[in-house]
Amino acid sequence: MKANRIYNFNAGPAALPLSVLEEIRDSFINFKGSGMSIVEVSHRSKWFDDVINDALIRTKRLLNLDEKFHVLFIQGGASMQFCMIPMNFLQDEKSADYVNTGTWSTKAIKEAEIQGKKIQVVASSEDKNFSYIPKNIQFNKDAVYAHITSNNTIKGTQWASVPDTNGVPLVADMSSDIMSKPVDMNKFGLIYAGAQKNIGPAGVCMAIIRDDMLSLVPDFLPSMLKYSTFASKNSMYNTPPCFAIYTIQLVMKWLEETIGGLAKMEEINRGKAKILYDLLDTSGFYKGTAKQDSRSMMNITFRLPNEDLEKKFIQEALENGFGGLKGHRSVGGCRASIYNPTTIEALEALTNFMKNFEQKNG
Amino acid sequence: MKANRIYNFNAGPAALPLSVLEEIRDSFINFKGSGMSIVEVSHRSKWFDDVINDALIRTKRLLNLDEKFHVLFIQGGASMQFCMIPMNFLQDEKSADYVNTGTWSTKAIKEAEIQGKKIQVVASSEDKNFSYIPKNIQFNKDAVYAHITSNNTIKGTQWASVPDTNGVPLVADMSSDIMSKPVDMNKFGLIYAGAQKNIGPAGVCMAIIRDDMLSLVPDFLPSMLKYSTFASKNSMYNTPPCFAIYTIQLVMKWLEETIGGLAKMEEINRGKAKILYDLLDTSGFYKGTAKQDSRSMMNITFRLPNEDLEKKFIQEALENGFGGLKGHRSVGGCRASIYNPTTIEALEALTNFMKNFEQKNG
Repeated sequence: MKANRIYNFNAGPAALPLSVLEEIRDSFINFKGSGMSIVEVSHRSKWFDDVINDALIRTKRLLNLDEKFHVLFIQGGASMQFCMIPMNFLQDEKSADYVNTGTWSTKAIKEAEIQGKKIQVVASSEDKNFSYIPKNIQFNKDAVYAHITSNNTIKGTQWASVPDTNGVPLVADMSSDIMSKPVDMNKFGLIYAGAQKNIGPAGVCMAIIRDDMLSLVPDFLPSMLKYSTFASKNSMYNTPPCFAIYTIQLVMKWLEETIGGLAKMEEINRGKAKILYDLLDTSGFYKGTAKQDSRSMMNITFRLPNEDLEKKFIQEALENGFGGLKGHRSVGGCRASIYNPTTIEALEALTNFMKNFEQKNG
Repeated sequence: MKANRIYNFNAGPAALPLSVLEEIRDSFINFKGSGMSIVEVSHRSKWFDDVINDALIRTKRLLNLDEKFHVLFIQGGASMQFCMIPMNFLQDEKSADYVNTGTWSTKAIKEAEIQGKKIQVVASSEDKNFSYIPKNIQFNKDAVYAHITSNNTIKGTQWASVPDTNGVPLVADMSSDIMSKPVDMNKFGLIYAGAQKNIGPAGVCMAIIRDDMLSLVPDFLPSMLKYSTFASKNSMYNTPPCFAIYTIQLVMKWLEETIGGLAKMEEINRGKAKILYDLLDTSGFYKGTAKQDSRSMMNITFRLPNEDLEKKFIQEALENGFGGLKGHRSVGGCRASIYNPTTIEALEALTNFMKNFEQKNG
């Protein structure tokens, strides 16, 4: 802990790199000599142009994107994407495949169904409380897209590798693992991520869309609900969420210049997850809830012997400077969200605390 | 000017109160003893609950709202409202009236038409380049709502009083004059405002909706496009734009505790506008573009004798610490946006500069 900061294991909004927060603070009243705050400069000014363009360039470099891909900043979070995806891509009785791996997949499916769009749930892990990622899925080769949730924040599972879709473009909700490791973007027609977990504050969703998906967007949709509006106007058809984009820019800079890119980030993230999973695997007191081959590197879910102990654990953790360890209100238990900004030091401190708690209560 | 800050006349994003910016900066690394930044706390935490609830209470108090009204925070700016309004309220061949007073009204009309909704433009000031607000408008008494743009940021006009609609609920885009003066909310079924002019940063739109309008929302819309979703979940169906809501909270606090409410704010705003309009009215060099009885208190548009002088004026103003005086790219000329946070001192400094410029170039 530094400067009275806690170890923050929130699921989102979540911890951000301290150096990023300090830079925001230090330039908040006078941004780059403009005499204005970043929240006061025009989105049509050279100051903001530099911010958004640097965010785009760094995103493209980090993910190794060629010119087929367009990086967009859209408001409304992943939940708005659940609505926009079927609205933009499923016209004239065309159909899409969905894989249901938890709460957020279920919501994505529901928002397609509300619109009366034709979709097929080709696999689900609901039979075992979403504790695993389905394997050997048969995708429909005439599907317009195949939708997956790459990491399941609430259930603590993650796709270990990208499924083979028979050439159908993958559409992925990567809200909780974007930029946590390198990804072969050529398999994806669209990825999207609410920023508030790995890459920034709440209030903006990053969407990366391929040309061929963009060509499916019909003209008759409202301007703010078409991917093509955002792609043709560099995400500035109207005033964008400037502060959120600025924070993303600083996080991308941190990923490139402090961390050293996504391969390095993955190595760090694997190391962090191993510290906690090793404890869960050797303890008779703490028990991980996700199936081993489906475990998330980002959200580690676990139970204690009973709910009273869980309550006590969460309370004592808080008192000792560890925040956000309560599981999602829909599932209970405990969860440590360890996104990119979470440090190895935080994991070591947490596992030490957990060992002490086990000794006293086990 | 303080601390190397300029006089900021941006149209939006725009100036914010310096005391608000300083409070954000000073608590940015450790918000209210949480050990986290405001951008790192959970939206389901007591810290954020206090923020959003205080923002709501102050908003209701400032606008004198009774329990019929619901204050919502929605992403996507006013442009998303252009889409949501007809989508939520115009089912089954029902119709709405629109008044066209400029660029933003025109966009609101277009987004209703894109959706194939039935609307009628009952008045327009397009015949005179939107330089006035139409009078004696005949509204259709069976219209579901009557849409107006209360202040026209680009054209520099503003409704001096609310039109008589024969009982039809008014729906108003108040992006550029919300909270600039008291308003009789009982005439309105819905008002909305992109925050980045009078009340906060870009990235959130405040919408205030009355019960009877809420009851019109059909079930079959996507969750993120229904007003009822936001009303039933206190704007937290999904992660809200926390930082933008936090800034709004501080601005509402400033309005109540530093300014002393909306009647006082109006008095200050009228005083500010008078300083600049008095100069325009007595100068043969500068010329206001809006008709006198339709003038905006928020955005003051004016021309110089020719475009070369305008270019020189904007450039020299910049060099002297006055930013944002260029008119909107669609109309040219000059514009001073003087929203709530702009000080009388800034107006006095600007008019002094303008008099000097006239002496040297007139």
